[in-house]
Amino acid sequence: MEEGNAKEAPSLSAKDVADAFLNQYYTILKKSPKEAHKFYQDQSTRTHPCADGSMKSATTLEDIDLQVMESIVKEWNPDLDTVHAQESVTGSVILGVTGSLTDKDNVIKHFSQTFFLAPQEGGGFYVHNDFLQLVEPIKVSEIFPSLNDATNSVNALQINFTGSLFKGDF
Amino acid sequence: MEEGNAKEAPSLSAKDVADAFLNQYYTILKKSPKEAHKFYQDQSTRTHPCADGSMKSATTLEDIDLQVMESIVKEWNPDLDTVHAQESVTGSVILGVTGSLTDKDNVIKHFSQTFFLAPQEGGGFYVHNDFLQLVEPIKVSEIFPSLNDATNSVNALQINFTGSLFKGDF
Repeated sequence: MEEGNAKEAPSLSAKDVADAFLNQYYTILKKSPKEAHKFYQDQSTRTHPCADGSMKSATTLEDIDLQVMESIVKEWNPDLDTVHAQESVTGSVILGVTGSLTDKDNVIKHFSQTFFLAPQEGGGFYVHNDFLQLVEPIKVSEIFPSLNDATNSVNALQINFTGSLFKGDF
Repeated sequence: MEEGNAKEAPSLSAKDVADAFLNQYYTILKKSPKEAHKFYQDQSTRTHPCADGSMKSATTLEDIDLQVMESIVKEWNPDLDTVHAQESVTGSVILGVTGSLTDKDNVIKHFSQTFFLAPQEGGGFYVHNDFLQLVEPIKVSEIFPSLNDATNSVNALQINFTGSLFKGDF
């Protein structure tokens, strides 16, 4: 931002896009939540926790709007601890946020939120993916099976994640 | 896709891919870290924290290999609290993990890790994006400027994040 070539579209870094997005996103969620679904498109997926702790996905603009309006978050004014963004495929930006916010029962929740911002027609970006995970460092739940327990089912899938690594009998 | 054509390559859910990937990824990191860079390609970005808390990006396979071998993590055997995966653009899978691991000083660190798994030639996936953020819920650092402070620079960017929302003088 040192040089001001205001007339040309500047080449924005992933961090520029992320900072601008987060500011707009959390401002709208707090001040005009009824508009927040406009960050998304019909091909978007937004997954956020419900009051019972389970994760619920919304995959249409109508459902995303409903999910925002029914949010367990009392007021979208998070304290952000860390923000990290990277360029991703097809001109997209992937970003992760960690921080804390307050739920409807006034309990402070630590969270991790991930966004995938994809380019949209006419310029700019829309939110293609959005998921928010609550982080409860004290209580380690057993949502995910242990790595050892998962080995059998995983091997059965035979997905190749590397060019050569899993072609042998590693 | 409801019917099971078992002889064809199965249509895997994002969660299937994520579970299989995480098992292989953390197993390799623990048992054969020298092989771990093979999950990535030259267009990948891997950003992980250094000992001083700053984030360092590796963007070549050679640097990714170096970064893995110099990791501040004592042993890659994380306790995973939550795993969430979604399908993303161009057949990719985006996934977020929260959990805890132990650093070289035997201090337990809570973390959030985000992966973007892109399809690769010959089948399967490679890690296009990978970043790990340490979560320190007690100490709220000031890495990110407050939302209010950021408003001016953000407005100057004039990035359009929605189809219509920011065309008015909102």
